[in-house]
Amino acid sequence: MIRNHRRPTGASRKEAALRSFGSGTRVPTLAAVLDIIRERTTVSRVELAEATGLTQATMTRAVRKLLAMGFVHEVGTARSNGGKPRRLLELQPEAHYQVGIQFDRFASVGVVVDLAGRIVARREMPGPGERRPREVLAEFAETVRSMLDAASIDRSNVLGIGLATHGPQDREAGVLLTPQPTPEWLRFPVAATLADLTGLPVVIENDATAAGIGLQARGDSASSFAVVFMSGGIGSGLIIDGHPYRGSTSNGLELGHISVDATGPRCDCGNRGCVDNVASPTAIARQAAANPELVARLGLGRDPLSDFSSVGRAAIAGDPDAAALILLSAQRLSIATVSLVNLFDIGRVVLAGSAFAETGAVYRDAVQQVLDESVFMRHVHGTRVELADNLTEAAAIGGAVVVLRNRLESPTVGDWAAI
Amino acid sequence: MIRNHRRPTGASRKEAALRSFGSGTRVPTLAAVLDIIRERTTVSRVELAEATGLTQATMTRAVRKLLAMGFVHEVGTARSNGGKPRRLLELQPEAHYQVGIQFDRFASVGVVVDLAGRIVARREMPGPGERRPREVLAEFAETVRSMLDAASIDRSNVLGIGLATHGPQDREAGVLLTPQPTPEWLRFPVAATLADLTGLPVVIENDATAAGIGLQARGDSASSFAVVFMSGGIGSGLIIDGHPYRGSTSNGLELGHISVDATGPRCDCGNRGCVDNVASPTAIARQAAANPELVARLGLGRDPLSDFSSVGRAAIAGDPDAAALILLSAQRLSIATVSLVNLFDIGRVVLAGSAFAETGAVYRDAVQQVLDESVFMRHVHGTRVELADNLTEAAAIGGAVVVLRNRLESPTVGDWAAI
Repeated sequence: MIRNHRRPTGASRKEAALRSFGSGTRVPTLAAVLDIIRERTTVSRVELAEATGLTQATMTRAVRKLLAMGFVHEVGTARSNGGKPRRLLELQPEAHYQVGIQFDRFASVGVVVDLAGRIVARREMPGPGERRPREVLAEFAETVRSMLDAASIDRSNVLGIGLATHGPQDREAGVLLTPQPTPEWLRFPVAATLADLTGLPVVIENDATAAGIGLQARGDSASSFAVVFMSGGIGSGLIIDGHPYRGSTSNGLELGHISVDATGPRCDCGNRGCVDNVASPTAIARQAAANPELVARLGLGRDPLSDFSSVGRAAIAGDPDAAALILLSAQRLSIATVSLVNLFDIGRVVLAGSAFAETGAVYRDAVQQVLDESVFMRHVHGTRVELADNLTEAAAIGGAVVVLRNRLESPTVGDWAAI
Repeated sequence: MIRNHRRPTGASRKEAALRSFGSGTRVPTLAAVLDIIRERTTVSRVELAEATGLTQATMTRAVRKLLAMGFVHEVGTARSNGGKPRRLLELQPEAHYQVGIQFDRFASVGVVVDLAGRIVARREMPGPGERRPREVLAEFAETVRSMLDAASIDRSNVLGIGLATHGPQDREAGVLLTPQPTPEWLRFPVAATLADLTGLPVVIENDATAAGIGLQARGDSASSFAVVFMSGGIGSGLIIDGHPYRGSTSNGLELGHISVDATGPRCDCGNRGCVDNVASPTAIARQAAANPELVARLGLGRDPLSDFSSVGRAAIAGDPDAAALILLSAQRLSIATVSLVNLFDIGRVVLAGSAFAETGAVYRDAVQQVLDESVFMRHVHGTRVELADNLTEAAAIGGAVVVLRNRLESPTVGDWAAI
């Protein structure tokens, strides 16, 4: 019998994933090496070569580059059994900083993170609402300035800004391919404009994917998981062995627009019975608004995210109408998540996004229960549901991490041939 | 603005995909080189190096290996502009053969293919039904013998057998992880038993994934597409830049068990409103059986796949009851396919499997129409729906291709370090 698939299991899985990472896509090697240095705190070149499957000569060149950029430094030596002393490397977290901003129609959050992905400054901002892109981006620029001032970070030490928001996007062009929140945003040069306003490089990224990248870069660098991201709407992202799944145009995983009711009402997107229309915070706020007593009791009528938060708090406090709405949302989201898990065959789902701030545990438990009962592969492997750390900032942190990755992957820095 | 994603476009896309293929996963290099040789008919080492991004020294070693295995041979020289003559390589299609067998409960088909993926022998067989694994596998072994005899192929020239069937599977162990078609099949050593009976190496593969691999290996080796596979049930597979997407346990894309009705009837799998229960041939045969006039008119009451074929032929001939059943199936399958496309962000869907033999064009047109109206990304890129060539044999061909790939990827043959 041919062994048709050498699937790494247990302890060897991560290492094999890293090895394929290292030898695989030629560009992200420096990012992979930096991830391992961060994870292991201190590590020698020999250990790095072993963990990645790269040759020691290649690792020596990669480390030389990271040293020259100031991303890592040497912190003494360790003597291996009988061999010559090995110099140990350590991340230099304060060498550079990155800014991440996540926004949707109703809320925005900005962070400054260091090379270890730790938040050193944070600001909440209003969402764009109906405002023009230029006004909103000017506000973002001002927030960036304010955060850097507050953290006493010199602009020359900032690698750039990552803007995490809804798709579809053209990430190369730095534009949104959707007339959301208003038609003016369609193909508006958001990245170029914010770059002009701040003097910093700017990238855009899908919010759910960004949340996944942020979680991955701060945790196990070779892990695989899906992100269910909920702010005003519902999205999702997928990290496979530490790599974001992108799809053909970097707009994968539109979880909000998969149908949970083939005969349901038509969505603006053209599909019927989209889960976004029945389970998203915007949808729940709309349903709450149809109940005048609930509106009066909770003082609803602000923006949908605020109203959704109020409904969530009331549900936790025992309001039966509010609890019914949250439960309906959680059940519908669970059904869609089963589809996601059945299609991608994944073992871990992380919930992220500010909409989980109040009722995240309710959603986590509901989704876990439905997955336990309904995932096709559950007799082969379970699927674990978790709430992200930093629910609200996860996507902004990921935006910042994308900036770092891009820097390490840029041809003049990380090119395989050059290191 | 940072160029955050160097997405290859147009002409460069395939080449970039191949380059990432070649330098990426270290093992499948020989398979990639063989694919290009097959696609270009005749090609020089220099052209191969250019197409894959591998160094000429590496390509020379890879070609030496393929020559030694008899997979390719030299067919003369071409003089490039001013340089020295380049020796041209060509696939040796008859050097080796592979067997593929696809089976589900109701039908089986076996093929013998050459190195170019061309069918040189073919047999239809009954499906396992309620029979024991050993009896069915003995029938498969006899069919293999008969096909090889008919095509006058010596067993020593056969690389092995690929069994394509439903999941979940443990491909490493060569067993099914589901009590289908009967409980005896759960963890029965299907690969090892068939290997004992035939003296040939045997691998197992998901049927939808196999269909995708078969299509990819006979067409554009770097293409990306989803396969919607329908035999008794509904499954799907995904090929990204020529690579099968596998998920965490090689059981991705359980399209049949994604929900199109969150409040629908509970499926055996535990989920509600699974598309398999409303749209699969088995489901349509069940629905047809509930219409006594239709049963009498079409002489139904055989196995579900045969009954589904009868309903399909009647639908084409204008029977309104039959047409209504096929249309319902096509519509529900379309909704599920939109979810697939929205999650994976793909631009091409291929329908394969014997259930599309009668009414494939109806399904193709229905799915195309719904995708055109409902895919979230349709304003950014369209998604094309196609019927596979060799609808009925696609998965069996793919099973055979997997055997070839595994041979080229086996450590003693294709290891990067060794070539």
